[in-house]
Amino acid sequence: MAPSAGTGLLRGPDTTLPNRLALSARTVRNALIPTPKLRDWITERNAAQLHEVQRIPFARLHRWRFDDATGDLAHDSGRFFRIQGLRASSDHGPVPSWTQPIINQPEIGILGILVREIDGVLHCLMQAKTEPGNVNGVQLSPTVQATRSNYTRVHEGSAVPYLEYFRRAEERHVLSDVLQSEQGSWFYRKRNRNMVVEVHEPVPEHEDFRWVTLGQLHELLTEDNLVNMDARTVLSCIPGGFEGTGAGGSEQADTLARSCDPLSGSLHTASEVRSWITSRQSEHLVHADLMPLNAVRQWRRGPGEIHHERHNFFSIIAVDVRSNSREVGGWTQPLLRPHGIGTVAMLVKRVDGVLHALVNARVEPGYLDVVELAPTVQCTPQNYERLEVDYRPPLLDVVLGRTPEQVLFDTELSEEGGRFFQARNHYQIIEVAQDFPDTGLPDFRWLTLWQLTDLLKHSHYVNVQARSLIACLRGLA
Amino acid sequence: MAPSAGTGLLRGPDTTLPNRLALSARTVRNALIPTPKLRDWITERNAAQLHEVQRIPFARLHRWRFDDATGDLAHDSGRFFRIQGLRASSDHGPVPSWTQPIINQPEIGILGILVREIDGVLHCLMQAKTEPGNVNGVQLSPTVQATRSNYTRVHEGSAVPYLEYFRRAEERHVLSDVLQSEQGSWFYRKRNRNMVVEVHEPVPEHEDFRWVTLGQLHELLTEDNLVNMDARTVLSCIPGGFEGTGAGGSEQADTLARSCDPLSGSLHTASEVRSWITSRQSEHLVHADLMPLNAVRQWRRGPGEIHHERHNFFSIIAVDVRSNSREVGGWTQPLLRPHGIGTVAMLVKRVDGVLHALVNARVEPGYLDVVELAPTVQCTPQNYERLEVDYRPPLLDVVLGRTPEQVLFDTELSEEGGRFFQARNHYQIIEVAQDFPDTGLPDFRWLTLWQLTDLLKHSHYVNVQARSLIACLRGLA
Repeated sequence: MAPSAGTGLLRGPDTTLPNRLALSARTVRNALIPTPKLRDWITERNAAQLHEVQRIPFARLHRWRFDDATGDLAHDSGRFFRIQGLRASSDHGPVPSWTQPIINQPEIGILGILVREIDGVLHCLMQAKTEPGNVNGVQLSPTVQATRSNYTRVHEGSAVPYLEYFRRAEERHVLSDVLQSEQGSWFYRKRNRNMVVEVHEPVPEHEDFRWVTLGQLHELLTEDNLVNMDARTVLSCIPGGFEGTGAGGSEQADTLARSCDPLSGSLHTASEVRSWITSRQSEHLVHADLMPLNAVRQWRRGPGEIHHERHNFFSIIAVDVRSNSREVGGWTQPLLRPHGIGTVAMLVKRVDGVLHALVNARVEPGYLDVVELAPTVQCTPQNYERLEVDYRPPLLDVVLGRTPEQVLFDTELSEEGGRFFQARNHYQIIEVAQDFPDTGLPDFRWLTLWQLTDLLKHSHYVNVQARSLIACLRGLA
Repeated sequence: MAPSAGTGLLRGPDTTLPNRLALSARTVRNALIPTPKLRDWITERNAAQLHEVQRIPFARLHRWRFDDATGDLAHDSGRFFRIQGLRASSDHGPVPSWTQPIINQPEIGILGILVREIDGVLHCLMQAKTEPGNVNGVQLSPTVQATRSNYTRVHEGSAVPYLEYFRRAEERHVLSDVLQSEQGSWFYRKRNRNMVVEVHEPVPEHEDFRWVTLGQLHELLTEDNLVNMDARTVLSCIPGGFEGTGAGGSEQADTLARSCDPLSGSLHTASEVRSWITSRQSEHLVHADLMPLNAVRQWRRGPGEIHHERHNFFSIIAVDVRSNSREVGGWTQPLLRPHGIGTVAMLVKRVDGVLHALVNARVEPGYLDVVELAPTVQCTPQNYERLEVDYRPPLLDVVLGRTPEQVLFDTELSEEGGRFFQARNHYQIIEVAQDFPDTGLPDFRWLTLWQLTDLLKHSHYVNVQARSLIACLRGLA
C-alpha cells in the first residue's frame, strides 16, 4: 500500500517532548534562578504573606451552617464543598461496612502548571502559596489551583492569575490534561483536572511566581513539606519517563532510567497489567452512598469538632483565616484534621536491571471506580493501636523494619492544605533485594515506572499518594 | 547506558498479535467452517432451540414484584437487576432536568470470546444463542455471556459452558480484558467485562458453539440482526487495528487500513484527543441519582406496562419465556421495550488518505463518568415527532439526506435481548466529501480508527453504539 500524497493536515506524536523533559530534569545548575535563590524567595514570600489561622467553634463559621434536617455542614451559597455522611460496604478488608463523615465536592477544579522554554530548557511556573491547613506557611504550588467556585467567582475575590492559559488550552500546546482522583477516604468522588500547558510567548510576572526546572523541583521534593500535593500530582502526570535523565550515572540511576524507558521490558506486559486491574475492579464489590451526616454512627459532634468516639481516624474542625494574599482577605471554613502521621511507602526492586515498584489495587469508598493503584503501604499506624482487631496492612512490617541502606527516599510531605488541617505523611521509597519473594497477594503487582506513567495518561488508575511517590521516584535519577 | 545482563524475567509487548489478527480478518474462504455451513448451522440451532416468549401482566411475574414503599420492580433474591427511578439534571442538551425509569444492575458480568489458532489462523468460538428480546431467534453471541448472578448460580441452573477459561484468565494469553459501559439512557452505570482469551489446547465441543474467523464475523455483521450486541462490543475491544487487512485492495480499503495503522498521522494527536475528552468531562455538569420508581413524574404504570404519558421513549413490560436451551427451562422477567427504531450513524471522511470518523462526546445519565464518545448521530427520530420543541440532534439531516454512494454500511442490528425487547437500530456508516466542513461543534471531533482502538484498551471512553460501529468499520476492509 503506497502512502497517500497528503496536504499536510495529518500530525504525529510530539517526538521532541521526552528529550526536552529529560533536559529539564537534568538541569539544576543552569536553571534560570539558582536553587538557593529560590529558597530565599520562598522565605521572603513566607514573611510577606500574612496568614493567621485560628481554630474556632462551628458557631463562629460565617455563611457555613449545619442543615437542620440532615446535619450536613454546607456553605449557604450551596457551593465549595459539603461535609456529609457516607455509608460504605465492601467484601474487601477486615471491616465489611461502616459509616463516616466525608467531604463532598462534586465540582471539577483545575490544577495547572504553565511551562515555557527559557534558554532552551523547559521551566515550570511555580507559585509560593499559603493554605490554611499547611503545617508551615508557604509551599510550592502549581501555577493555578482553582476550584470551579474560584474561577466562576463565587466569593467575589480577585481573578485567579494565569487561569486563562488553562481555560482555553485547546489553542496551546497541552502536555497533559487528565482528571485524577484525590483522597478516597476523605473525599467523595472528588477529582481535579491536572494540566500542563506550554506557552511560547513571555507571560506577565507576579511576585508570588517563579520559573523552576524539573531538576530543581526534584531537588526540592526531598525537603519536608515544601512541594505541595497539588504540584506533586500535576508533576506525576507529565507524560515522559525522563528516560534520558540518568544516562551515564550510577547503577541505581541506570535501573531507574531503564524503568522510565518505554522500550525496556517488564515483569508483566501492559495488557496483563490492564487485565489485572480489570479483575480487581470486577472482583471487589463496593457500595458507597452518601447519607445524612447526623445518621453517621459512632461519631460525635462537639462545639468545635466532629470526631469518632474513640478519637481515631480524623475529625472535622473549623478555622478562621486572615490573609493578605488570597482572592479574599479573610474567611472561615471547615477543615478535615487527620489524627496521626501517615506512612506512605513504595517498595521497589530491580528485576534484570529494571526498577519495579510494588503497587496495591486499593479500595477506598470515595473512588469513582472501585479500586485505584496505591503505594505498597498506605496507612496511619497509630490508628491500629486503639482497635481490638489487628487491621495492620500487608508488608507494613517490611516498611517498619527497613535498614538505612534500603531507604532511597524519606521525606515528610503534606496533603492539600485547603481541605485538610496539617495532614502529614512520611513518604518513603524502600528498595528490597532482587530475591524479595513474590508476595502471592492478588491485590499487589510489580510495575515499571514507564507502565505507571502510561496509566497516568488516563483517569482513575493511580491514586494521589502513589502519584506523589511517582513524582519523587523520577527525581531519584 | 549499557543494557543489563538479564535473567530472562522481562517481557515486551506481543508483536506477533497484529499480524495474527489481520490474517484472521483476511481469512474467509479458508476458514474451518465455510460461511454457508455456518448459516445452515444457525438455521438448525434456531429450530432446535425452543424459545417461546409471551408478554404477560406484571401480576404473573414469578419472584419479581413491586416494592410497596418505592414502587421499584425487583427479584425477591435481590439479584439480577432492578427497575428503579432516576432523577437527572444537566447543563447539556435542551432538557435541563427529568426523571425516568432505569435498569439498575450493579454487578459486573463477563462477555468473553475464546480464540484459538486453527490451521495457523485465529478463530473465535461463537455461540448460537436465543434471548427473549431478540427480534428473530438465535443470534451469534460471545462464547460466554454471564452475569455474576449466572455464574454464582442464583437460579440454580446448569453451569455456564467455557466460563472457567475466563474466570482464571491470568493463567492464559489475554488479548483484551476491559470494563465497558452499556446503554446510558437505559442502564444505571452498568458495565461488563469484555474479554478475549486465547487457548492453545483443544476445548470440549458443544452443539451451540462453532469456530469462526474474524473475516467471517465481518461478513456476518452485514446481515440484519445476526451478530448480537455482546459479540459486537467484545470484537470492538480486540487490540489490533487490522492494519494489514486491506493491503493491495481498493482505495477505500487503503484509506481504512491507514486509519487502523498506529503509524499513520491523524488530524489531532492522541494527547489532544485526551485533552478534548477531559474538557468535555469537566465542562458538562451532570447529576444523576436513583430515586423510587413511584416518584418518577410523567410515567404511568398499567397492569402490563410502565410507559411515558405520551408513549414516547420506551416502556417496561413483562414476559414469560419457555426454553430448552438455557440454564433453566423457563422463567419470567421484565424487559425494556424501546419505542421506534433508532438511527445510529457514523460520518467518516478521508483526510490525506486516512479515514477519520466523527465522534460525539455524549452525555447520558447512566454513564459512570459524565460523557462517552458516541457515533455522530444516535437517536430515535420518531421520538421527536411528538414533542413541542425541536430536539433533533446536529447532523441528523446529513444522515437522513445521504445518497446511496455515500453509504458504506447500513444494517439493522439489535441490542442485548436479555434486557431489551426488540431494540432495533439502523447502524450506518456514511462517507462525506473530503471538504465536508469542520462542524465547529465543541462536542464533536474527527478521530482515526487506530485512535478509537487505542482508547478501547481503557474503560468508559467509547459507548456501546460506537463500539458496534467500530466492529463494523473494521469489517469494511
